[in-house]
Amino acid sequence: MIQSKDDFFELVEQIQNSAYYREPLGFGIARVDLGQKSGRVLQATFPFINWQENYGSAAIFQKALQETGHIIPLDESEVVFEVSKNFVAEAISYCTPWLDEAVGDAHKNVQVMKYLRDLPDEELANYRVVFLFEDAAPKSVEAVYLKLYALSSGKAALRSLNLDGAFGVLPNVAWEGRKPYELEWLRDNELRLKMEGAYPNIDAVDKFPRYLQHIIPADNTRILDAAKVRMGAQLAAGTTVMPGASYVNFNAGTLGPAMVEGRISSSAVVGKGTDVGGGASILGVLSGTSGNPITIGENCLLGANSVTGIPLGDGCIVDAGIAVLEGTKFFIAPEEFKKIKEANPEWDAEYKELFKGIELAGLSGVHFRQDSTSGQMKAFRSCKEVKLNEELH
Amino acid sequence: MIQSKDDFFELVEQIQNSAYYREPLGFGIARVDLGQKSGRVLQATFPFINWQENYGSAAIFQKALQETGHIIPLDESEVVFEVSKNFVAEAISYCTPWLDEAVGDAHKNVQVMKYLRDLPDEELANYRVVFLFEDAAPKSVEAVYLKLYALSSGKAALRSLNLDGAFGVLPNVAWEGRKPYELEWLRDNELRLKMEGAYPNIDAVDKFPRYLQHIIPADNTRILDAAKVRMGAQLAAGTTVMPGASYVNFNAGTLGPAMVEGRISSSAVVGKGTDVGGGASILGVLSGTSGNPITIGENCLLGANSVTGIPLGDGCIVDAGIAVLEGTKFFIAPEEFKKIKEANPEWDAEYKELFKGIELAGLSGVHFRQDSTSGQMKAFRSCKEVKLNEELH
Amino acid sequence: MIQSKDDFFELVEQIQNSAYYREPLGFGIARVDLGQKSGRVLQATFPFINWQENYGSAAIFQKALQETGHIIPLDESEVVFEVSKNFVAEAISYCTPWLDEAVGDAHKNVQVMKYLRDLPDEELANYRVVFLFEDAAPKSVEAVYLKLYALSSGKAALRSLNLDGAFGVLPNVAWEGRKPYELEWLRDNELRLKMEGAYPNIDAVDKFPRYLQHIIPADNTRILDAAKVRMGAQLAAGTTVMPGASYVNFNAGTLGPAMVEGRISSSAVVGKGTDVGGGASILGVLSGTSGNPITIGENCLLGANSVTGIPLGDGCIVDAGIAVLEGTKFFIAPEEFKKIKEANPEWDAEYKELFKGIELAGLSGVHFRQDSTSGQMKAFRSCKEVKLNEELH
Repeated sequence: MIQSKDDFFELVEQIQNSAYYREPLGFGIARVDLGQKSGRVLQATFPFINWQENYGSAAIFQKALQETGHIIPLDESEVVFEVSKNFVAEAISYCTPWLDEAVGDAHKNVQVMKYLRDLPDEELANYRVVFLFEDAAPKSVEAVYLKLYALSSGKAALRSLNLDGAFGVLPNVAWEGRKPYELEWLRDNELRLKMEGAYPNIDAVDKFPRYLQHIIPADNTRILDAAKVRMGAQLAAGTTVMPGASYVNFNAGTLGPAMVEGRISSSAVVGKGTDVGGGASILGVLSGTSGNPITIGENCLLGANSVTGIPLGDGCIVDAGIAVLEGTKFFIAPEEFKKIKEANPEWDAEYKELFKGIELAGLSGVHFRQDSTSGQMKAFRSCKEVKLNEELH
Repeated sequence: MIQSKDDFFELVEQIQNSAYYREPLGFGIARVDLGQKSGRVLQATFPFINWQENYGSAAIFQKALQETGHIIPLDESEVVFEVSKNFVAEAISYCTPWLDEAVGDAHKNVQVMKYLRDLPDEELANYRVVFLFEDAAPKSVEAVYLKLYALSSGKAALRSLNLDGAFGVLPNVAWEGRKPYELEWLRDNELRLKMEGAYPNIDAVDKFPRYLQHIIPADNTRILDAAKVRMGAQLAAGTTVMPGASYVNFNAGTLGPAMVEGRISSSAVVGKGTDVGGGASILGVLSGTSGNPITIGENCLLGANSVTGIPLGDGCIVDAGIAVLEGTKFFIAPEEFKKIKEANPEWDAEYKELFKGIELAGLSGVHFRQDSTSGQMKAFRSCKEVKLNEELH
Repeated sequence: MIQSKDDFFELVEQIQNSAYYREPLGFGIARVDLGQKSGRVLQATFPFINWQENYGSAAIFQKALQETGHIIPLDESEVVFEVSKNFVAEAISYCTPWLDEAVGDAHKNVQVMKYLRDLPDEELANYRVVFLFEDAAPKSVEAVYLKLYALSSGKAALRSLNLDGAFGVLPNVAWEGRKPYELEWLRDNELRLKMEGAYPNIDAVDKFPRYLQHIIPADNTRILDAAKVRMGAQLAAGTTVMPGASYVNFNAGTLGPAMVEGRISSSAVVGKGTDVGGGASILGVLSGTSGNPITIGENCLLGANSVTGIPLGDGCIVDAGIAVLEGTKFFIAPEEFKKIKEANPEWDAEYKELFKGIELAGLSGVHFRQDSTSGQMKAFRSCKEVKLNEELH
């Protein structure tokens, strides 16, 4: 048993210099929901995650695994082990100097160990030790969830993680609140449950859970309908997601306070101060764009029922009801062209009457409009300053 | 008591030749929720339904009804009886040879009878025997539900059933999960419930329940928000309904894997491989069309925030943000007209510059667009092949 | 103790003539949910509210407050007191003549007192006496809720109440059904709750509750998704709110039966018989309009995915997919101008070819359309009569 903090730090150094230690990208202990029929993992709930941090705890956990016969292969990008009584006992024995201090925000990994120590043995089968060593395509439900937590907690940047194949890894389940049901189990038990009046009230059937099932947003963030934000989305403090036609998919979201009344498709990112109007669509790589993820800059206004299929810089306006797609042709008057160039000195373009949407990608200060007298699509220098309503909605 | 399977088959034949037997279109036993104030039926939950099948069970149930004094009128399109202790005893006595085998997927009607046999007598008032003999306008809540089950389970084709007057038959109730409350009862008890902190959390007020309150979708079907699909909708395996601006009404849905991010109004049907983009509207006979239900073919793309008010064949594209209505005039260039004719040899049209939407109804391979330089609506031969993202969203 | 009804009326008159009595705009007793960490009020549930009515009960409550040491300042626009045992005893003693009659719809304030009388003392901390004397900016959570109740119950007209600063007064909380959680408390307890598998299923994070968490709609009103209507909205009997892209914000709603498949932004009001099509947006003062709240008249049709940023009179049609904004220019043919003038004799305009949207604000019988052959926006006299489908959806 480790008795002093100095001994603890020495032990950690020793472990980190040992052959079996691998520095993790992220790790944590998860509580898992198991399939009612298959017994496979349906959902992993992390009380918190470690992401490029807390390497001392990582070392301790790895030693405890090693000592209890759980070998971490050197060539795997991730590992998942069932929590065992011995693992907990070992880990706790190394953490003795911290046990009393581990409350509130301090030493959360130790808090988790204390919690596991006090559990009846048979409950341990519901917990997993999860390590992610590289950002490879995730192979386990637990690894996918660890990455979704990293994105949604803001510890990893949007689009920074490899989620290839995540749809294949996650099982499609029926959600009654936070509880996932295997569809096959529901089928097997449908007759009985319905006759008994005990059939569950299913909120959704999906591979992904909802953001609010796992994440506590910032104090000034609002999500009026939990169904609108998928786990893996990232919402900066001060973001409001209204319940009309809005939606924020995984690996998409906002970088600052923003009003979201429209759709932020997977891979799309919206800057601070931007207003995504009611029913506005920002296309994503999974549908609509030609594979380029869309970034919308700061203080933009995407009008109600507009569609944006190109990246925008700061201070742009897309008028209500129009579609700005890669192939849409916009007329630009010579004087407006000059002003747009001034606002975008790095823009290397010669004047011509018509520009395709893709040629205007990423420019700041552009106002996109359909001329109501001619039906022609036009772009010009935006002159209104976009400001989010301070009180929001 | 019937002792052997042969005796059973003989009995069934006997019944089917008797004067009182009527071959049903559909039948089943439902568990019902009764009005807290009125005692009338608010919801009928079928553990499963029989639809043009299992006539042996139908015969047995009819004899058991007959023997216990429940007369089935010969001129009614439907009947509903409260389940009685004697009815169950009779039915069970005919089913003796199957009692042991009736587990899992086998002999579900017998399983239901076994379940009812083991219930305390006073519980039987919550169950109903429901027979539908013809596809007439439904008269009872139970008959409406039986038809909605037939549609949503895929046992009856969309638009194939008579639902006239269903809105009049179903009571409007407040739903707390799967539990319906009578509004009048809530009013009577509002003061007490609120003072006690026991006021229910109402999810919806509607005549129809939600699809997922009664139906288990296929393993690869996803519905990210249960509120988005009404009971009576039909979703083919592989359909994904996203939570943004989407909605699938009763008697509407998909015939194959499809991505649904828009609205499929009542009576509208979408073919396999089609992508209903974010906020796209397909109009229905209850609103928007001139009474003709809209079918969208296979592998079509309805762009984000588009509106489609005419039927489409296969491989059509409606650009984001535009409305294709019966009266919308589309310019077609002579060479595009030729190509569209080639793709639609059965299309009997002479060339002209402008075609109304209704004149293009049902054609395959048409791309609808608004010219961004002139504002003119145009139709031409689509050249992109629409493919659903394999991984979907 | 007051023994007779005459004594009661005399007492009321006495109180109303006393120096401390203040005639309230609205008042009521609320059950409150208290912050798990801060103890502050998170939500106030009124079993019913008194709004410019029941001044006898108001007098009684004020005397009971006065006699038990709760002084009502003469210069405050609102007061909130914790319900005390003595207050209840006093109030009950004045109401003796009504105690037996107070059941069902009769004497609801007395019913509330009886309920409080029978509560264990320690429960009283969850109840508040709330008085609103003037329509000033609300200062307490209870006062905001009282006003939202007044709006949603239809006792106060939409836009008639001062809600300035309501967003600042209401705490942002996580809702699990009707139960609000303080976000800070959730953070403090996240680790434990997740380890225990007891983490709540959060439906929304917002300052406002949902309409259906507090209000029982009329028998023929339907709200297919509770998330779509915020508390403080007003829905006239016969209104249907579909679950696609719809939304009704606080201080917005309908004045008669209406079909709502689109967004009614805060401050927007929709007249009877009007159909707000799928995805249609009516802009609000918090976003989109230049500060003028929008009223839509009766029997209008706002087409699917249309955007309306100006007020409309009766019988107007906005075609699917178009945006009618203050600055949109509409061509009007001379003969159509004449017809529109006939339908709007009070309209004081000279003929010109192009009218801005704002110049057409509030006119009746106008049809707004984009010409599909030229892309030009046009306005003309509407000739279709808009009728809501009798059976609705």
